[in-house]
Amino acid sequence: MKSFLISSTFALASVVTSLADSLPSWTEDSPSKKSIIEFVTKVTDQKSDDFVPAYDRIAVFDNDGTLWPENPLPFQLLYAIDDIKSRAADHPEWQKSEIIKAVIDGDLAKVKAGGKQGLMEILKVTHSGMTTDEYAANVANWAASAQHPKFAVKYTDLTYQPMLEVLDYLRENDFKVYIVSGGGADFMRVWSNEVYGIPPEQVIGSYTDVKAELRDGKYVLVKQPELAHNDDKEGKIVGIHRFIGRRPIACFGNSDGDQAMMQWITDGQSPSFGLYVKHTDGEREYAYDRNPSSSGKFDKALDAAKENDWVVVDMKSEWQRVYSGDVEKK
Amino acid sequence: MKSFLISSTFALASVVTSLADSLPSWTEDSPSKKSIIEFVTKVTDQKSDDFVPAYDRIAVFDNDGTLWPENPLPFQLLYAIDDIKSRAADHPEWQKSEIIKAVIDGDLAKVKAGGKQGLMEILKVTHSGMTTDEYAANVANWAASAQHPKFAVKYTDLTYQPMLEVLDYLRENDFKVYIVSGGGADFMRVWSNEVYGIPPEQVIGSYTDVKAELRDGKYVLVKQPELAHNDDKEGKIVGIHRFIGRRPIACFGNSDGDQAMMQWITDGQSPSFGLYVKHTDGEREYAYDRNPSSSGKFDKALDAAKENDWVVVDMKSEWQRVYSGDVEKK
Repeated sequence: MKSFLISSTFALASVVTSLADSLPSWTEDSPSKKSIIEFVTKVTDQKSDDFVPAYDRIAVFDNDGTLWPENPLPFQLLYAIDDIKSRAADHPEWQKSEIIKAVIDGDLAKVKAGGKQGLMEILKVTHSGMTTDEYAANVANWAASAQHPKFAVKYTDLTYQPMLEVLDYLRENDFKVYIVSGGGADFMRVWSNEVYGIPPEQVIGSYTDVKAELRDGKYVLVKQPELAHNDDKEGKIVGIHRFIGRRPIACFGNSDGDQAMMQWITDGQSPSFGLYVKHTDGEREYAYDRNPSSSGKFDKALDAAKENDWVVVDMKSEWQRVYSGDVEKK
Repeated sequence: MKSFLISSTFALASVVTSLADSLPSWTEDSPSKKSIIEFVTKVTDQKSDDFVPAYDRIAVFDNDGTLWPENPLPFQLLYAIDDIKSRAADHPEWQKSEIIKAVIDGDLAKVKAGGKQGLMEILKVTHSGMTTDEYAANVANWAASAQHPKFAVKYTDLTYQPMLEVLDYLRENDFKVYIVSGGGADFMRVWSNEVYGIPPEQVIGSYTDVKAELRDGKYVLVKQPELAHNDDKEGKIVGIHRFIGRRPIACFGNSDGDQAMMQWITDGQSPSFGLYVKHTDGEREYAYDRNPSSSGKFDKALDAAKENDWVVVDMKSEWQRVYSGDVEKK
């Protein structure tokens, strides 16, 4: 009896805590916060018609613009730029490529103007030809020291505190949480567990092939240049099927690139939940709202949100605090 | 203090239980059983130099021939044959294909002689063109009713009881357990959770592309014929990197197709463990030992096992019971 009492007390305490404190960085009257809590409460309530067993509680999060910023460029591209600059002296042949030269010269406007083809050239130089271990070490070194050009803190200090709280709140309620991002899986997996508490196997992203090679009798994996999976738009549905093999019940994103998976997830049989982060805070973060960001538009998806009752977070008015690190104090 | 005492008592009880009962279908003096327990004990003992934090306790299992039989043909191919036979009346055009006609006529020798190209033709007809939901429903129906030609029970009754006990024993010790199989991911994921307690997201296999299509305003995924990943031999290392993103510490297989991943896993930094199931029991299962089975050879891997101190299970002498279902009573 005693242990029953103890566990009941814990359970009660945990409900009270969750109602009071689970999302402290959201404003008290935030409608999005209310929607999140309502959804989680109903799917975890065994007496509710909308109850979902823990086994099926899977939630997916886009990364760039949803869990951390995507300006002035997606952070993975800033990594690539830093990497090219740091190694340029050893690679005089890079000067022959217009786009790589623009990177070395710090001409971001030209880099942006290079479009998809330019991006592929930059990624080829920085994301292939090395072993997966070498690449992971490079990214880890960069993440530990590089600073964001506007906020002058480490990139990982810029993760959105209100969204970290959503990750925790979902996990406390037995959700299994995945990243589903257009960014590179190998890039995010280096720091995802430390920063988000999301282990590599729950990070779905774009990827190139890797080739297993024996070196000194031991296998290494060498990153190849060819893109094997582009985890964007409908590719996100494909990625979820390929990696998870079943349909999540909750989806968090911030752009048209997330619309297909949000549609697919909220079209499912279970009760479901869709949420977009809208970037409305030019002072604390960036304001681009319906304007294209550096990594994608948020336009058709915003119209679809109305039709489908997806939640749209107004960052400026609903987030009391934006970043996990000490940024706003500066 | 009380709660400490309680948890210590539980911990002690759990060690005793685990030593006594964790692998009851293995013979008492089985050397393989001893090796499994020694490995798990040392990596979970915080005082051991070989302690591995729970986060890094990942184990991978081949499926065909490791968790269930692979004769007279891999079960997925038997599914394909049953599927073709059941739908042949609606597809007179199939008679034009020699290999598909052999399937319809039940000429297994000809099917086997068709080799890889024949196999691809059979898989194309049975594993593409339908939605993932339609395919999953087909496989579920088949698994619920089809019977193995030799043992006359459902295929899922033929999972190896001693290996199910290993799966449970590892999970009790906070291992995360994956399937890494040359078989189709979409095929195994239909029944993996029910049969092995392994959810779809922990099943890595071969796969074709899927294409997201809007039908009546909702997304469906249509299975395409092109093989996108062949999860065999070095492809298993690639699959593990792609899906898990870090190196497991334990590997269970039964053929040359598992040698590359076993090499890679036991070459890792952590303490590691490799085990092969050797098929030596012609009476209760099949005896092919070093001879090629229907799905692969076990030859070079057996030599490598000696060099690398991988455990080799002699099914005949080390398994008291073979199957999870009531098969041996017949």
